[in-house]
Amino acid sequence: MILTVTLNTALDVTYRVPELRPHTTHRVTEVTERPGGKGLNVARVLSALGHDTVVTGFVGGVTGAVLRQLLAEFATPGGGPKAPRGTITDALVPIAGTTRRTIGVVDAATGDTTQLNEPGPLVTTPEWSTFMDSYGRLLREASAVALCGSLPPGVPVGTYAQLIREAHAAGVPTLLDTSGEPLRRGIAARPHLVKPNADELAGLTGSTDPLRAARDARRRGARAVAASLGPDGMLMVTAHGAWRATPPRRLTGNPTGAGDAAVAGLLSGLVEEAPWPDRLARAVALSAAAVRAPVAGEFDRAVYDEALARIEVTEHPAAA
Amino acid sequence: MILTVTLNTALDVTYRVPELRPHTTHRVTEVTERPGGKGLNVARVLSALGHDTVVTGFVGGVTGAVLRQLLAEFATPGGGPKAPRGTITDALVPIAGTTRRTIGVVDAATGDTTQLNEPGPLVTTPEWSTFMDSYGRLLREASAVALCGSLPPGVPVGTYAQLIREAHAAGVPTLLDTSGEPLRRGIAARPHLVKPNADELAGLTGSTDPLRAARDARRRGARAVAASLGPDGMLMVTAHGAWRATPPRRLTGNPTGAGDAAVAGLLSGLVEEAPWPDRLARAVALSAAAVRAPVAGEFDRAVYDEALARIEVTEHPAAA
Repeated sequence: MILTVTLNTALDVTYRVPELRPHTTHRVTEVTERPGGKGLNVARVLSALGHDTVVTGFVGGVTGAVLRQLLAEFATPGGGPKAPRGTITDALVPIAGTTRRTIGVVDAATGDTTQLNEPGPLVTTPEWSTFMDSYGRLLREASAVALCGSLPPGVPVGTYAQLIREAHAAGVPTLLDTSGEPLRRGIAARPHLVKPNADELAGLTGSTDPLRAARDARRRGARAVAASLGPDGMLMVTAHGAWRATPPRRLTGNPTGAGDAAVAGLLSGLVEEAPWPDRLARAVALSAAAVRAPVAGEFDRAVYDEALARIEVTEHPAAA
Repeated sequence: MILTVTLNTALDVTYRVPELRPHTTHRVTEVTERPGGKGLNVARVLSALGHDTVVTGFVGGVTGAVLRQLLAEFATPGGGPKAPRGTITDALVPIAGTTRRTIGVVDAATGDTTQLNEPGPLVTTPEWSTFMDSYGRLLREASAVALCGSLPPGVPVGTYAQLIREAHAAGVPTLLDTSGEPLRRGIAARPHLVKPNADELAGLTGSTDPLRAARDARRRGARAVAASLGPDGMLMVTAHGAWRATPPRRLTGNPTGAGDAAVAGLLSGLVEEAPWPDRLARAVALSAAAVRAPVAGEFDRAVYDEALARIEVTEHPAAA
């Protein structure tokens, strides 16, 4: 199975309003709730691709209870008519604090989203110890682990480095998808793959040239870098070469979750031991297909199949 | 005791953000939750004024459970250092649906609020019957009843008229605070007092002159009308005369809850059988004091005392 870690899970709430106008009162016409946080979105895409996943991280309070219930409903097989589905197993660790909500306010006129993210709950030292024990046990069964998203209050900034070292010791390859100081510290622990976007790479390395910045990130410790460049596709730099892939056409839609779909593509390629350019193509195609789906954690299967068939991967000349 | 009816209760959530900018992502710096819906706010103000209240209406789901817990915490005596407090008794009727949330996004830069109100839960016919049985029993102990706010889906538009007729039969005076068609239908059942704002009065009567519109509302069935005119204070028209009261100075702050504080003032004057101009002064002073409090259901006691001492009530000449 593939393990995804989401330390700062969220109950993702989406509100549809006719038009968001600051400092006025709005009647919300539609409310949807789903289990959120990057690693949970990644698991849902992996499930649709046929991979079994286990999700861990922290969950608590009434929002946490709703999150777990929605996750269980999603994980129940037989719901979807689509391709073979992998299982999603809930290994979230209960905490005394309350799981945060994120509110996405979708403007029905334009389709644009305004996002309001609550702060995460405080994680105590005993809760962290319980998580680490569980993480160690889960690693024994994992073929890969993805470490996803921000850190909640009370979790040390060097945490991802610690989780990467544990995975190394267990012989499990790691993918790190975070930003800021947790990314900087995590990279130093030599993860197998990091997936920053261009802004995160520039923040890490000081370079706005993605190829130069990705090579710099490898020197800082990342064994491979898959950088998402928004509508321009992705750039991948490994020990074996550097490639770029661009989606066949520009797609408009909901960019939320495109990065999580790319992470799922990279993970599925990793556990299937696909060649690097194939992993990159899969990530870009899933990312494009996620843009065409209404919510994070889902993707449009037809767009995925079409994009995968048409994406061209070009190799960069060797590094200077 | 005073009974307040809130058919469409809400869990009121307040988010503080540095600045609300549509179509961007915001970190919420502060989250507060409190029991909401007009009748619950009215009960909290009445409690601070020393009146015992019973709150009824519908409540359900996880948000409903949080609402009840917060209401119980508020109702626990000994919390506040202020004047004698009345009790608040929870007589809400459980339903299968989920109580709605309202999200108030406060812009820390300007203090302005952007409001997002979820639709209410569907109320079934058996749930409505349970409520009516309970309402009939509660009326026997009530010295006054306030019917507050919008109607949730599944509740007929003529509902307030029915609740007013039941109260008449039980000999309990009624205050109606709603808008649109529920207000129009409710007025026809001859409530003792309605408290529309100028817009609601204009919508009801077609007249933008508040005095003319209030007199028209009386002809339509309301025995007395207390119209809130925002910063210009209030206008009251009864069988015994018409009065206007203006706050001593313009106060800036949070207008949410000012109308609910005014309802509490009118109710407390009613059960104490205060003269009409005194009831009006109390309502205007509480309204001004609520504007100076950060959340609905609370008011600034010093502002209230000062305003009450300084408000001048002027009598209008008799109707043409």
